[in-house]
Amino acid sequence: MAGSTFGRILTMTTWGESHGAGVGVVVDGCPAGLALCEEDVQRYLDRRKPGQSRFTTKRNESDRVEILSGVFEGQTTGTPISMLVRNQDQHSKDYSEIAGYYRPGHADYTFDQKYGFRDYRGGGRSSGRETIGRVAAGAVAAGFLRELGVTVTAYTKSIGPVEVDPGRFSLEECGKNKLYMPDAVAASEAEAFLEEKMAQRDSAGGVVECVISGLPAGVGDPVFEKLSAGLARAICSIGAVKGFEIGEGFRAAKMSGTMNNDAFLPGKNGGIRKATNHAGGILGGISDGSDIIFRAAFKPTPSIASEQKTVTKTGEAVSVSIKGRHDPIIVPRAVVVVEAMAAFTAADMLLVSMSARMDRIKAFYLL
Amino acid sequence: MAGSTFGRILTMTTWGESHGAGVGVVVDGCPAGLALCEEDVQRYLDRRKPGQSRFTTKRNESDRVEILSGVFEGQTTGTPISMLVRNQDQHSKDYSEIAGYYRPGHADYTFDQKYGFRDYRGGGRSSGRETIGRVAAGAVAAGFLRELGVTVTAYTKSIGPVEVDPGRFSLEECGKNKLYMPDAVAASEAEAFLEEKMAQRDSAGGVVECVISGLPAGVGDPVFEKLSAGLARAICSIGAVKGFEIGEGFRAAKMSGTMNNDAFLPGKNGGIRKATNHAGGILGGISDGSDIIFRAAFKPTPSIASEQKTVTKTGEAVSVSIKGRHDPIIVPRAVVVVEAMAAFTAADMLLVSMSARMDRIKAFYLL
Amino acid sequence: MAGSTFGRILTMTTWGESHGAGVGVVVDGCPAGLALCEEDVQRYLDRRKPGQSRFTTKRNESDRVEILSGVFEGQTTGTPISMLVRNQDQHSKDYSEIAGYYRPGHADYTFDQKYGFRDYRGGGRSSGRETIGRVAAGAVAAGFLRELGVTVTAYTKSIGPVEVDPGRFSLEECGKNKLYMPDAVAASEAEAFLEEKMAQRDSAGGVVECVISGLPAGVGDPVFEKLSAGLARAICSIGAVKGFEIGEGFRAAKMSGTMNNDAFLPGKNGGIRKATNHAGGILGGISDGSDIIFRAAFKPTPSIASEQKTVTKTGEAVSVSIKGRHDPIIVPRAVVVVEAMAAFTAADMLLVSMSARMDRIKAFYLL
Amino acid sequence: MAGSTFGRILTMTTWGESHGAGVGVVVDGCPAGLALCEEDVQRYLDRRKPGQSRFTTKRNESDRVEILSGVFEGQTTGTPISMLVRNQDQHSKDYSEIAGYYRPGHADYTFDQKYGFRDYRGGGRSSGRETIGRVAAGAVAAGFLRELGVTVTAYTKSIGPVEVDPGRFSLEECGKNKLYMPDAVAASEAEAFLEEKMAQRDSAGGVVECVISGLPAGVGDPVFEKLSAGLARAICSIGAVKGFEIGEGFRAAKMSGTMNNDAFLPGKNGGIRKATNHAGGILGGISDGSDIIFRAAFKPTPSIASEQKTVTKTGEAVSVSIKGRHDPIIVPRAVVVVEAMAAFTAADMLLVSMSARMDRIKAFYLL
Repeated sequence: MAGSTFGRILTMTTWGESHGAGVGVVVDGCPAGLALCEEDVQRYLDRRKPGQSRFTTKRNESDRVEILSGVFEGQTTGTPISMLVRNQDQHSKDYSEIAGYYRPGHADYTFDQKYGFRDYRGGGRSSGRETIGRVAAGAVAAGFLRELGVTVTAYTKSIGPVEVDPGRFSLEECGKNKLYMPDAVAASEAEAFLEEKMAQRDSAGGVVECVISGLPAGVGDPVFEKLSAGLARAICSIGAVKGFEIGEGFRAAKMSGTMNNDAFLPGKNGGIRKATNHAGGILGGISDGSDIIFRAAFKPTPSIASEQKTVTKTGEAVSVSIKGRHDPIIVPRAVVVVEAMAAFTAADMLLVSMSARMDRIKAFYLL
Repeated sequence: MAGSTFGRILTMTTWGESHGAGVGVVVDGCPAGLALCEEDVQRYLDRRKPGQSRFTTKRNESDRVEILSGVFEGQTTGTPISMLVRNQDQHSKDYSEIAGYYRPGHADYTFDQKYGFRDYRGGGRSSGRETIGRVAAGAVAAGFLRELGVTVTAYTKSIGPVEVDPGRFSLEECGKNKLYMPDAVAASEAEAFLEEKMAQRDSAGGVVECVISGLPAGVGDPVFEKLSAGLARAICSIGAVKGFEIGEGFRAAKMSGTMNNDAFLPGKNGGIRKATNHAGGILGGISDGSDIIFRAAFKPTPSIASEQKTVTKTGEAVSVSIKGRHDPIIVPRAVVVVEAMAAFTAADMLLVSMSARMDRIKAFYLL
Repeated sequence: MAGSTFGRILTMTTWGESHGAGVGVVVDGCPAGLALCEEDVQRYLDRRKPGQSRFTTKRNESDRVEILSGVFEGQTTGTPISMLVRNQDQHSKDYSEIAGYYRPGHADYTFDQKYGFRDYRGGGRSSGRETIGRVAAGAVAAGFLRELGVTVTAYTKSIGPVEVDPGRFSLEECGKNKLYMPDAVAASEAEAFLEEKMAQRDSAGGVVECVISGLPAGVGDPVFEKLSAGLARAICSIGAVKGFEIGEGFRAAKMSGTMNNDAFLPGKNGGIRKATNHAGGILGGISDGSDIIFRAAFKPTPSIASEQKTVTKTGEAVSVSIKGRHDPIIVPRAVVVVEAMAAFTAADMLLVSMSARMDRIKAFYLL
Repeated sequence: MAGSTFGRILTMTTWGESHGAGVGVVVDGCPAGLALCEEDVQRYLDRRKPGQSRFTTKRNESDRVEILSGVFEGQTTGTPISMLVRNQDQHSKDYSEIAGYYRPGHADYTFDQKYGFRDYRGGGRSSGRETIGRVAAGAVAAGFLRELGVTVTAYTKSIGPVEVDPGRFSLEECGKNKLYMPDAVAASEAEAFLEEKMAQRDSAGGVVECVISGLPAGVGDPVFEKLSAGLARAICSIGAVKGFEIGEGFRAAKMSGTMNNDAFLPGKNGGIRKATNHAGGILGGISDGSDIIFRAAFKPTPSIASEQKTVTKTGEAVSVSIKGRHDPIIVPRAVVVVEAMAAFTAADMLLVSMSARMDRIKAFYLL
């Protein structure tokens, strides 16, 4: 069954394999009249591209995006925006060996079980290159959100045991190190940790945190289309994500009601604000006007040079050591993917929320 | 926008408020020929009903389900199964006071922001009674899964600081205590902890763990319809859930690749098995034939008798103490809700997976 | 697969069989703040109920609707509106005979082929009673449309060979005869024709026409979600409909471009109008501000008392004569069903169209 | 809102404008293991390409398709199949004039009303080139159907007043004339008729008929997902279609029940057959095992060289004569589009129908 479309009013449909002709996405439902050019998208893609540091694969892809439709004279037209990135640096030979056995921690075995065979080159559809379409779509969504005063910012919260210290938190710092960590000291420690892992032919995991600011109260629906549920699905659909939490998350399970409840207080201009934000900006699945804050746990890169036990397609035991160019950690390049998925989800839910109230619909149509 | 339907091939559409005429669900897409009667559904509803112990609200609802359609001569007909539970014990007076202010930790404020007004009686649509429809639908899905040899089992993993000890884990024990904890010692400690919280007019949170056994390899799709993403959405759509993790979850972020990868080994009858199950049964979003294991973090019950600061609808600061009948902990009654959502997701994805391979489709249609 | 949900932003999910406990619908996505009571819905249901004249089945159902959720203090709350009509006059004995053979022109055979068995009582899910849910949902949609100045009006255009004469067309007359024909003379002729058919133990077909007035230009999307495509699906999903056409319809296939094109002319207040409306109010799948006009062809009632050849479930040839209470013509009771489906489609598409333009979205959110 | 995706299990998402970089489609949900190459798709595209005769636009596009993903070693992999056709012969200058006024019978006005502006070059998204994506997707669906013994065949039934004579009907003849008419005499008369229209600077409409053979009984669902409703939507989503009918269609409205009912008779091998096929192969929305037969009415090409009245964007009256290269009739090139949409709908509904019965699901999973 079709599984590559995400969103309800604003949708993205991604396609492409690691070593096919290219990867891409069709963004449908984008409102007409949004300024958009290839450079807007390219800026996002550049943040996930390989070869940025010694912690990312040396695969040399320029990953240039081409907008094929849906934009006219610098503006979106309301029709589908098709975006294409050609694959270029395809070392298919590197992968010929893995056609015959199942890499631990990868989707080789499950793809074969599901489809009967697989495009084994570079992981095919299960490759991280699949996220290029997501990031391109996220760039469009982020542009849409900016017009409404909404920003989405993700960063590396931790790498292995090294966590950002809240006392040193600086978003500015985030752009200065290749690990996208908003804490220079932690970034430096994390780099040392990663060097050690690489020396051990091993890999590491980490946590990405994301903040959505400026989202008005009232976005998200009760029951199945909660903003939290939508974000959970969006984030857990990213390869290597094993956990998702919002606000206090798993910590909330150990807190008492008096600690975890956020008191309401009178705000500016007769409005209402919260004294704290344990909830992470969502109550009953609906945004409360505070920052939306959530985290995603990424497992360590499964491709490691250390020897591992596995079996061949025909069930024979073998020992393997994964060659090729692999990131020792997924997190730094995943930061922009998290941001893209969060932006897309928020943009879609903002559009969804326009139809919630009769009085606003009447004002929309009768004025 | 419609937000009360869940699933793709097998869907449930829930409806109802805490103090309206009733709550219910329409299950659509259920295959014809599944044995189903009201008692099958009632057994599941009885596990979530109030008044089971001193830790659950004393609201006295018999919550009897009526199947209105879709079943003929004891079997599903393939048409929508409509199920209705009338609300009975509606103490609307208890709630008249809360019409005017916003309860901290509840959806009162966000509903007003979204819809302009709200059915304030007992939380209306954001009440825990909304889950009755989910549980009824989950009972149907669980029956479907049983026919295919798949079982879904959830239990309380922790309450506040009290965790189940793996060394004492016993599913049998789970049914013997009212906290649904598979560990008699932990259950006893947790009860003491909850007594303390109640004495403090406070509440507690906890973690539910769930295991899906017998699911064949190949269920779930790459990209957006990963089994993990579907479960994440399903579980995070339950009120009070603040976190979701699969397999090692957030722990995986601190593990190295050599620790977290599950080696493949030759299995029985020429098959393949995994040496460990850090992945929680899902690789690349697709089931690998191992047990699917995930956890959900529930926040403490927001309704507490302690005094809290909040504001009225018109923005004036007030101090409130939530009266009425409220569970000091949501977790024990949420166990069956988690199980229901997991069963529904697994059943739907099993149906989805039937169309993955041309050879099997030909065998299906041409034999 | 689930097939009983219609709509995208505004959805209805219908359920129920002819001789089960009842029939009903869940309307989800209805904006909050729309005035709604049971009487609003009942008025629509009364137009389709049996026993209105000698041309409709004598089955005596009061078909009283109960609103179970989604309405509070006389207004919709934005949450699902569940509506229930209990089945009352169930002469199941009348149908015991048809369990064994396949009625020509009915869905008995195809249901058995699809599902392996069927609820044969009164046609089960394929009964005309299935439309009760549609009509109830359509009543909600019509109320929504009225708030925006949009009206939907259907009537009988022809019965067998008897057509409404445009020169005598009078909507007022439509409510005066039981055939819902806007032409007293044609209605009288049609009645005579139907008497003749009944005497022959035969049945008749006819055409329903529907006009949507007041719909603003810009509703409907290019490509697959054209307003025309949505209406086509909506109308052709009604049992017994065998044809759908919009504007000139099949006549357009015989016209030349110069005849069929509608010239644009300067309109009032700097606006634009069309000199004619051959298009039926839709250009490129999008409403042009003129009346939307379409027609639906209904086949003759398949249940006839005349003897017919058919086969039993086990494949033996038999001769049957359908007993029980059946309308000699479906059209008069189908008029309100067409109106309901048109209203629901238009309402949904109006909501969909709110997200088409960036400037309007900014005005919506930033004012 | 996104409106360029069609299908439920098997989906297509089309994109592209007449004078942008290209047009294309993403087919998602196609089962793995279907043989597919570019030539399979090209054959379908060649049937709709311009310049085939003097009755089709002289726009000289080679319309070569490139498959970008989803195929590995000659077989579909189960992942999205992205297909791209670059636009080549873009005479954008031809269209500069139409930027300022609204062509009668076209979507210029409604696009401006909906989106605030439009890509006016060649009609942009509302151009007939949009159907390239549909035809490419239909080619994949047709290949899928062939594996299951299902064929889809469309042809020109009538052009203006010239209809195919059933007594001369010959599918073989259909491929021999450029009008795709299965009747040499009618084709010759239709050519003469079209010459006349062209001399008059006018255009013509016509009817396409389509037959789906080999579809097993049981495909399509009751209520909203009837096979007939799905086909109606699919066909009415094609630009210029103004009517749709199945089986006897509008004729059924004038028939009596005794004439229109199809008697069931004992068939081969203990099976069941119908004596006639007035129903067009669908009963209660579900296929009955007979041929599915439907027709689509196409309006005359709105682009005509004759002078027409219209208005400019600013509302001034003008007289225009549409220049550029336009087909005097849409029908011959639309034949393959109808076939593509029918094939796609049938393929999707076949996949949908796999989940209808518990016994078959158990056989699928437990064997």
